[in-house]
Amino acid sequence: MKFNNRNVWISANATIGKNVKIGDNSTVYDNVVIEDNVVISNNCVIGEPTSGYYEVSNYTNKQTIIGANSIIRSHAIIYSGSKFGENFSTGHRVTIRENTTFGKNCRVGTVSDIQGYSNFGDHCWLHSNVHIGQKSKIGNFVFIYPYVVLTNDPTPPSDVCIGPEVGDYSQIAVFSVLLPGVKIGKHCLVGAGSIVGKDVDDYQLVLGSPAEFKKDVREIKNRKTGDSHYPWPYRFSRGMPWNDLGFDEWEKLINND
Amino acid sequence: MKFNNRNVWISANATIGKNVKIGDNSTVYDNVVIEDNVVISNNCVIGEPTSGYYEVSNYTNKQTIIGANSIIRSHAIIYSGSKFGENFSTGHRVTIRENTTFGKNCRVGTVSDIQGYSNFGDHCWLHSNVHIGQKSKIGNFVFIYPYVVLTNDPTPPSDVCIGPEVGDYSQIAVFSVLLPGVKIGKHCLVGAGSIVGKDVDDYQLVLGSPAEFKKDVREIKNRKTGDSHYPWPYRFSRGMPWNDLGFDEWEKLINND
Amino acid sequence: MKFNNRNVWISANATIGKNVKIGDNSTVYDNVVIEDNVVISNNCVIGEPTSGYYEVSNYTNKQTIIGANSIIRSHAIIYSGSKFGENFSTGHRVTIRENTTFGKNCRVGTVSDIQGYSNFGDHCWLHSNVHIGQKSKIGNFVFIYPYVVLTNDPTPPSDVCIGPEVGDYSQIAVFSVLLPGVKIGKHCLVGAGSIVGKDVDDYQLVLGSPAEFKKDVREIKNRKTGDSHYPWPYRFSRGMPWNDLGFDEWEKLINND
Repeated sequence: MKFNNRNVWISANATIGKNVKIGDNSTVYDNVVIEDNVVISNNCVIGEPTSGYYEVSNYTNKQTIIGANSIIRSHAIIYSGSKFGENFSTGHRVTIRENTTFGKNCRVGTVSDIQGYSNFGDHCWLHSNVHIGQKSKIGNFVFIYPYVVLTNDPTPPSDVCIGPEVGDYSQIAVFSVLLPGVKIGKHCLVGAGSIVGKDVDDYQLVLGSPAEFKKDVREIKNRKTGDSHYPWPYRFSRGMPWNDLGFDEWEKLINND
Repeated sequence: MKFNNRNVWISANATIGKNVKIGDNSTVYDNVVIEDNVVISNNCVIGEPTSGYYEVSNYTNKQTIIGANSIIRSHAIIYSGSKFGENFSTGHRVTIRENTTFGKNCRVGTVSDIQGYSNFGDHCWLHSNVHIGQKSKIGNFVFIYPYVVLTNDPTPPSDVCIGPEVGDYSQIAVFSVLLPGVKIGKHCLVGAGSIVGKDVDDYQLVLGSPAEFKKDVREIKNRKTGDSHYPWPYRFSRGMPWNDLGFDEWEKLINND
Repeated sequence: MKFNNRNVWISANATIGKNVKIGDNSTVYDNVVIEDNVVISNNCVIGEPTSGYYEVSNYTNKQTIIGANSIIRSHAIIYSGSKFGENFSTGHRVTIRENTTFGKNCRVGTVSDIQGYSNFGDHCWLHSNVHIGQKSKIGNFVFIYPYVVLTNDPTPPSDVCIGPEVGDYSQIAVFSVLLPGVKIGKHCLVGAGSIVGKDVDDYQLVLGSPAEFKKDVREIKNRKTGDSHYPWPYRFSRGMPWNDLGFDEWEKLINND
C-alpha cells in the first residue's frame, strides 16, 4: 500500500534495477544506481548532492550504489558518492554522507548519523542513534549500540581529522565514545558509558571514563548459565554466515579461501 | 494554515473521527482508528506497516488507535499495532514501533525512538531523544529526560530480550542507562549520567556508573528554600489529576475506587 | 536539480528575497522573512506555528527571519518567532523552536534540537544531535559537540526553568551535560562526558561527573608538537573573522570599535 507512485521524483540519470519499489514522496537524484529487488520506502532522498552543489555551477553528482536486496526505511537521506553492498538495511531517518562504503549485510539504525568518508566491512550492525565521525574505519561483524559516538578531532577546534578504527567482531556498548585515532582490536567489548582514549588489544573488555582494561572477554560468564558468552560468534549466529556450519568450521573455510 | 489537504493520503480502511485535522504530506495506512478531535500534523506516517509487509504477500496491517484529543506533531512515524490513550501528544520526528501501548495523557518528545513491544501507563512524559528498547514496562506518572536509554540484551549480541521496568512516579534523568531487566521502584530518582545495573527500591536516589544508592529522595532539599521537593507530586501538579484536590486527597480518592 | 518547485507551499504573507531557492516539499508559513541568497532545501518547514495555533482561533504567527546567504538543509523544522543572522547554516532534521535568536555565521548540526527561548551570539557552531533546553544563553565563538545537553530544571519535575550560560570561545565536548543555571566562563573546555553542576571560571578545563577543575587550558599541550593548542583562536581561524589578521590584531580592532 505504500507504493502508490505519489510525488516520487527519479532523475533521468538514475539506474533502477528489476523489482525495485520506491515509496511515496521519495527522491532519487543523478547517478544513483539502485540494484535489483531494493525497497526504498517513503520520504527518502537517495543521492543527496554534496555542498559543492550549492557552490559551483558545473556540479556533477558522484555515483551512489544501493546493493541488491536492500531496504532503506523512510525519511533516510543518503548522499551521493556512497556505496552499499547487498542486503543493506536501515531504520528511519538515517543520514549517511558522501564517500562512505558499507560491505554486505550491514544495518544502520533509526536516526543514526554517519558523517561520511568512512568505511565499514561486512555484517556491521549499527543500532539507533549512532554517530560516526569522518574517517572512521570499521571492520567486519562489528556491533555498535545506541548513542555511541566516534570522534576525530584531538584538539577541537582544529583541521586535524583522525578517525578511530574498530577490529572485526568487536562491540561498542551504549553511550561510549571512541576518541580520535583510537584503535580497538578484534573481539573487544567496550562497556556502556566508556570514553576510550587508548588503544585496546584483541579480546579486551574495557570500561569507564577513561576506559580501562577490566578483563579478557573470554572470562565474562553468563550469570545464569555460568558459560562464557564471548567470543560471541560461538553463541550467536542469526543472520551470520556461520549460521549453518558453526563458527569454527566457517572460519576454517574462510581461511582456506 | 497547515491543513490544506495537500498531498494527504488516507487509506479507505482507516476510521477517522469527528473534528480530526490531518496535515499536508501525511499518510494514514490501513486499519488506523483516529478518534475525535485529534490533530495529525504535517509529514506524519500513521499505521506504518511492520517488516512483514516487505516479506509476505498476504500481509494485513494490525489495528492502530490514536486516542481522542491527541496531537501528533510533524514527521512522526507510528507503526501499526500500537495504541495510545486520550490526550496523547508528541514532539516532532518521533518513531514508535509496533505493539506499544500508552495510557492516557502521555507525551513523547522530539526524536524519541520507541522500539516497540513496550507498555506505558498514564501520564508518562518522555522528553526529547529518549530511546526505549523492546519489552520495557513503564508505570504511571513516570518522567524520562533527554538521552535516556533503556536496554534489553544482557550479553550482546544475543537473542535474549529482557526489558527494564520503572515504577510509578519515578524519574530517570538525562543520559542515564537502565540495563536489561533492571527494576526501578516507585518515587525513585535516577541521577544524570547513571548506568543502572541493579534493582532500585522505592524512594531511592541512585547515581553514578555503576549507579549506587545515595539517599532517600525525601531527604533531598531545595537549595534555596530548604524544603523537600520529593515526593514531587506534592510540589508539581500541572497537567496532573490531583491539580485541584492535592495529591493526598486525590490518592485517597483513587484508593477508595 | 533540487529546485523543481514540486509540492512547495509558500504563504502569501511570507517575504522572499532575491535569488532564494526553496526545495521540493518545503513549506513556508505566515510572516516568514527569507533574506537574499538563501537556500531552503527540500522537505523543510519554516515558520512552524507554535502550540497556540492548535488552541486559539485568532492565532497569528510571529515573525521569523532567515538571514541572507543562509543554507537550511533538508527536513529542518524552524518555528515562528525565531531569528537567524546572515550566513546561518544547518545540517538535516534540525528542530529549532520559537523565540530563539542566532547571531551571524552560526551553524547547527544534523538532528539538533533547540527547545526555544534561547540566545546565541555570532559564530557559534553546534554539531550533530545537540540538545539546548529553554532559556539557555550562549556567547560568541562557542563550539558545542555532539550529544551535549543543556538542562534547565533543577528539581524535576517543576515549573522552574533556569538555563545555563556559556561564555565566548568556550567549548563543550561530546556527551557533556550543563546542569540548570550553570555559568561557563570564556575560553573554557568542558571535557567529554562531563556533568557540570558548578560554575566554571575563564580558561578552565573541567572534566568528570561531577565535573572538576583539572588545569588551565593554556597548559594543555599537543602530544605531538608540544605546543599549546588553547586559547584555540591562535590555532584555528577557518571561517573566523580573524582569518586574515590573526587573533591578536583582530581583537585589538574589535576592542577599539
